[in-house]
Amino acid sequence: NRRVLVTGGAGFVGSHLCDFLVSRGDYVICLDNFFTGSKENVAHLLDKPNFELVRHDVVEPISLEVDMIFHLACPASPVHYKWDPIKTAKTSFLGTLNMLELAQRCKARFLISSTSEVYGDPLQHPQTEAYWGNVNCIGERSCYDEGKRIAETLTMDHWREYGTEVRIIRIFNTYGPRMALDDGRVVSNFVSQALTGKPMTVYGEGTQTRSFQYISDLIAGMVTVMEGPMIGPFNVGNPGEFTMIELAELVKEVVNPKATIVFQENTSDDPGKRKPDITKIKSALGWEPKVVLRDGLALMVEDFKKRLGV
Amino acid sequence: NRRVLVTGGAGFVGSHLCDFLVSRGDYVICLDNFFTGSKENVAHLLDKPNFELVRHDVVEPISLEVDMIFHLACPASPVHYKWDPIKTAKTSFLGTLNMLELAQRCKARFLISSTSEVYGDPLQHPQTEAYWGNVNCIGERSCYDEGKRIAETLTMDHWREYGTEVRIIRIFNTYGPRMALDDGRVVSNFVSQALTGKPMTVYGEGTQTRSFQYISDLIAGMVTVMEGPMIGPFNVGNPGEFTMIELAELVKEVVNPKATIVFQENTSDDPGKRKPDITKIKSALGWEPKVVLRDGLALMVEDFKKRLGV
Ligand SMILES: NC(=O)c1ccc[n+]([C@@H]2O[C@H](COP(=O)([O-])OP(=O)(O)OC[C@H]3O[C@@H](n4cnc5c(N)ncnc54)[C@H](O)[C@@H]3O)[C@@H](O)[C@H]2O)c1
Ligand SMILES: NC(=O)c1ccc[n+]([C@@H]2O[C@H](COP(=O)([O-])OP(=O)(O)OC[C@H]3O[C@@H](n4cnc5c(N)ncnc54)[C@H](O)[C@@H]3O)[C@@H](O)[C@H]2O)c1
Ligand SMILES: O=c1ccn([C@@H]2O[C@H](COP(=O)(O)OP(=O)(O)O)[C@@H](O)[C@H]2O)c(=O)[nH]1
Ligand SMILES: O=c1ccn([C@@H]2O[C@H](COP(=O)(O)OP(=O)(O)O)[C@@H](O)[C@H]2O)c(=O)[nH]1
Ligand SMILES: O=c1ccn([C@@H]2O[C@H](COP(=O)(O)OP(=O)(O)O)[C@@H](O)[C@H]2O)c(=O)[nH]1
Ligand SMILES: O=c1ccn([C@@H]2O[C@H](COP(=O)(O)OP(=O)(O)O)[C@@H](O)[C@H]2O)c(=O)[nH]1
Repeated sequence: NRRVLVTGGAGFVGSHLCDFLVSRGDYVICLDNFFTGSKENVAHLLDKPNFELVRHDVVEPISLEVDMIFHLACPASPVHYKWDPIKTAKTSFLGTLNMLELAQRCKARFLISSTSEVYGDPLQHPQTEAYWGNVNCIGERSCYDEGKRIAETLTMDHWREYGTEVRIIRIFNTYGPRMALDDGRVVSNFVSQALTGKPMTVYGEGTQTRSFQYISDLIAGMVTVMEGPMIGPFNVGNPGEFTMIELAELVKEVVNPKATIVFQENTSDDPGKRKPDITKIKSALGWEPKVVLRDGLALMVEDFKKRLGV
Repeated sequence: NRRVLVTGGAGFVGSHLCDFLVSRGDYVICLDNFFTGSKENVAHLLDKPNFELVRHDVVEPISLEVDMIFHLACPASPVHYKWDPIKTAKTSFLGTLNMLELAQRCKARFLISSTSEVYGDPLQHPQTEAYWGNVNCIGERSCYDEGKRIAETLTMDHWREYGTEVRIIRIFNTYGPRMALDDGRVVSNFVSQALTGKPMTVYGEGTQTRSFQYISDLIAGMVTVMEGPMIGPFNVGNPGEFTMIELAELVKEVVNPKATIVFQENTSDDPGKRKPDITKIKSALGWEPKVVLRDGLALMVEDFKKRLGV
């Protein structure tokens, strides 16, 4: 069976990807430095014969023999990636370079999980893959946004220069079980707040929009791109668009009808709106999301209740 | 006297900067890997007591004791930076990080020579420093453009995270003696072609614009920003704007009245126009360029004649 490396495999997205790969019979090496992920996220996989957990920081090179690399390792939420911005940039640049070099040596196929943040505060709406973005390169989000942009550059150049087989996806906001409780993301915040009887914190006016994709749709999209014939970049997201107020209303409805809202000051550089144009992946590879927000929110309540002890 | 490190000091801009610093009495360490620069550019400084030449690649860390770092090391013209795009990105990212770490350890002030290419193919004209740019992150110029963008990110984050004293300048197209003859830049091409009786190669329609700054103006601007109180970023360029056809006409006039023009296909991702808004540096620091294009072209003819052997 195929040997598949998942960097950042003990994180939110990575652990769901490991679940999928292990269950279809791949031999999975899950690599993580546990900065934002945890052993707990993959605890249920530890006794599988085709799963292996390695503590390693992708900033350092590593010698392995693998056939496929899903490169996810990178802090993903502002509260984490702003914690040590230089380290975040190193993770993005050196981590990607190290994994590309590993892919080149092993002749493995490499997929990088880039982000909708490469579009920054977009002037085109919805965003197609051809849009070059509107990104501040010296702001507080830059370590992440520019880190991912240059990671895409390295990926394309590795293909152009060495013929490394690469795939690029740009993930839009994703939610589901195992999201870090302390990641400050809007879905995890609202659901936790609604479950623990605290008011849901809406930043700014709450009129900014996002599109939210359920984790199972993302995993299907990632695997589809990895196995497809095209490099990308491909947007992987759910085009349903919601204001933060609409999201709060929906959480109230689905999670706790007694939940309340409180408005708080917004952070700088917060993109005003974001919504994927998924024409490219839909027409080229036939992928599209299946889970609507209302259903997805319901699917994460049990996990959050358990972890919050309510 | 001050110990000043100039990385990329054997290049076009770096060698002129070394000239200036040595002549005002600083102790200058010129560091270069001679990828696009050469010992010849600083040969006349080698016997000065306050000048030192070190062969080193900025991708690797180095231990030195210095008070000031002008960080210029990076291939600067498309023909050079596209030659090994991964190496270019490493030079930009790792080179900048290594020099920032050196600055932090020495408590030295650090200046990075960024570029107008961080604005990409700009949708704002002229470009102010507040403009976020329009840059393709997966194209053939991306290793340079995104390399410089993340170098700016690292620089700002070093200041925010560690308090390193930093300065950022965004240099617009600069010309003068010692430009590499083989760098494929428009001014060196046209002047060489005019001097050797070959037709001047205008790419595309020749209606794209650039602004051209003479080297002595840049050196004055760099030093002004380094010694000023503000981080920047500051545009450093000459706001005079010329189409490539106008430039060719002027070269014809100044360099060789018999020169002819030939049109050639353009490369992809070539920015359509570019012109600095220099309000910020002018009002904050009082710098502005002094040399107009016609005069600057005349000032480089002797050097080009000598090196071309005509
Ligand atoms: N969740 C989203 O909405 C979203 C959106 C866009 C992009 N992405 C991308 O998807 C990937 C996974 O995101 P996530 O939501 O699962 O975040 P996460 O924080 O849960 O997972 C990231 C994992 O990478 C690990 N990691 C971080 N730095 C590392 C390093 N230097 N070496 C080794 N491991 C390291 C963390 O410990 C964690 O387990 C990231 O690359 C992220 O940028 C996620
Ligand atoms: N000349 C311009 O019009 C212009 C415009 C914008 C920005 N800049 C910036 O100014 C700086 C100098 O440009 P230039 O025109 O003098 O180019 P140049 O190529 O003449 O000089 C660059 C120097 O850096 C050296 N170098 C390259 N990679 C290195 C590495 N890894 N380690 C050590 N040395 C290395 C080269 O050998 C060369 O001497 C560059 O950072 C460039 O991006 C120049
Ligand atoms: O922004 C950061 C900060 C830390 N780490 C890594 O996360 C792990 C835990 O870091 P911490 O600072 O908590 O130190 P430790 O727990 O190892 O003492 C180490 O591998 C760090 O290199 C990281 O990837 N990104
Ligand atoms: O408790 C919160 C957390 C976030 N947000 C907003 O929700 C949106 C999405 O933020 P998140 O951090 O989840 O994702 P990203 O900004 O990276 O898309 C942003 O506009 C935030 O300002 C909010 O209103 N309340
Ligand atoms: O895009 C490049 C390619 C090479 N180099 C460096 O330039 C020097 C000369 O490189 P070359 O490949 O010509 O090898 P060498 O002359 O050392 O055999 C070496 O330090 C390389 O690392 C560089 O800085 N950028
Ligand atoms: O022989 C040449 C070289 C360049 N150019 C054009 O001149 C402009 C400036 O090119 P250069 O490489 O000097 O600088 P940059 O594109 O980095 O500003 C671009 O539009 C090129 O297409 C040209 O017409 N003929």
